[in-house]
Amino acid sequence: MRRWSFSKGHGTENDFVVLLDRDDTMGVGPAEVRYLCDRHAGLGGDGLLRAVRARHVPEWDGDGSLWFMDYRNADGSVAQMCGNGLRVFARFLLDHDLASGPTLQIATRTGLQEATVLPDTRIRVSMGPVRVDAPATPVTVRTGDGTEHVVLPADVGNPHGVAFVDDLGALDLHTAPQVPADVFPEGVNVEFVRVLGPRHIALRVHERGVGETRSCGTGTVAAAAAARVHTGDTTPLPVTYRVEVPGGEVEVELAEDQAHLTGPAVLIAHGQVLVPEEG
Amino acid sequence: MRRWSFSKGHGTENDFVVLLDRDDTMGVGPAEVRYLCDRHAGLGGDGLLRAVRARHVPEWDGDGSLWFMDYRNADGSVAQMCGNGLRVFARFLLDHDLASGPTLQIATRTGLQEATVLPDTRIRVSMGPVRVDAPATPVTVRTGDGTEHVVLPADVGNPHGVAFVDDLGALDLHTAPQVPADVFPEGVNVEFVRVLGPRHIALRVHERGVGETRSCGTGTVAAAAAARVHTGDTTPLPVTYRVEVPGGEVEVELAEDQAHLTGPAVLIAHGQVLVPEEG
Repeated sequence: MRRWSFSKGHGTENDFVVLLDRDDTMGVGPAEVRYLCDRHAGLGGDGLLRAVRARHVPEWDGDGSLWFMDYRNADGSVAQMCGNGLRVFARFLLDHDLASGPTLQIATRTGLQEATVLPDTRIRVSMGPVRVDAPATPVTVRTGDGTEHVVLPADVGNPHGVAFVDDLGALDLHTAPQVPADVFPEGVNVEFVRVLGPRHIALRVHERGVGETRSCGTGTVAAAAAARVHTGDTTPLPVTYRVEVPGGEVEVELAEDQAHLTGPAVLIAHGQVLVPEEG
Repeated sequence: MRRWSFSKGHGTENDFVVLLDRDDTMGVGPAEVRYLCDRHAGLGGDGLLRAVRARHVPEWDGDGSLWFMDYRNADGSVAQMCGNGLRVFARFLLDHDLASGPTLQIATRTGLQEATVLPDTRIRVSMGPVRVDAPATPVTVRTGDGTEHVVLPADVGNPHGVAFVDDLGALDLHTAPQVPADVFPEGVNVEFVRVLGPRHIALRVHERGVGETRSCGTGTVAAAAAARVHTGDTTPLPVTYRVEVPGGEVEVELAEDQAHLTGPAVLIAHGQVLVPEEG
């Protein structure tokens, strides 16, 4: 058995196990990630955030002294980006005196991102560009109860389909929405959005390979950008959308070159966890 | 914010947050239990085990120097007994030098129970008596897909209905089985059992108010006792049943006066957790 220090935290109830692995010596493979994220046999989390010096990450060719956010999904797979995770990661670095704020640079698989702690304790992170496609022919997805929904495809580094509905409560998201494989060959996160007012939306989200979640950072950005198209919002950029998710509320800023996500990030526990040796 | 020490552990993946509240001073109310057992905003658990000296428990009239297992469901409600929890509780007391083994007495809401650590590290706990009723007219429950199953009612301090099936994998337990309210006025835990061989069964369980779980201690006892009736097993008591559950495997001993449950119990983490002040 190995004994590892860990923290547990969440952003709008998108939750993570956080490990400090400064010099890439711990050996955090898919088996360890699955164990730690297991909600009954382990600590539990939607994913794991590993803080490692960027110089140890072969795919990173920037400043090696930065902290690299190595994000893994609960199933052990590598993920590109996670907006809620980025805020929790920033909180972890600051709480552990591994970086100084209020603004810090974080190396990620989608490049250099920036996090800023606001005076109200929320954290604002850069999310890269978002693109909404207006397809020539309508793209539809079908939820578990057989209802068809037209979606706007959007890209935030990962693929999204955004549907607009009148009643979020009535949706059947127990099963994955059926999506057209020719439009979304690698699967898709599907956001169901209700417009509550000008630049104010609420959503539920079904993440590919996961199921319905309490929140999805890239999903809130995709939903805000799609809502701007859907509502014919002609207010010049930058604009700010208030986005309610099942696990809380965030703000999404849309600008010409880049989106930003602002929301809470809390660490709720730290301690030691026993990790079985592999094999 | 309060900072509490905690442990996290499980028995066959029935998992618990464990708190030491020696002199009943912490103020662990339903709100704190719900927060700590929340799988996204908190630590996560099927329930919470609070270790408190029995003298502080008004309903306990036995030896006040014993440790009382104050078991709460994740929803904050008080529960009577939990066989998997009792093993984890015993492990907690031993690991923290709060009791000495290999056999220890534990005060519970169902009276005095006994736990013994076996040489192979498993823990054997007393579960009180189990009773199986052979109803005059068949009692049936209906699963989500509309299939009807005849059940044998059983009582292990809490109510169970045990059905026998050929294929555990085909069951639809996404929704609660519909049960006859006249037979089970307070709801019921439903076990679906496949007989694998002589005194060897596998089961899936749907716990009232919770949903399908990875394991249920009282459910394994009810299932073993019902299987003995169902298979017409005439081997004189005591007999031992091997019971496979989704989260692992346990043994159930059936005797004239009392059942015993033997299985693994592990503590996987300990640390400090931040707990918001109430309201």
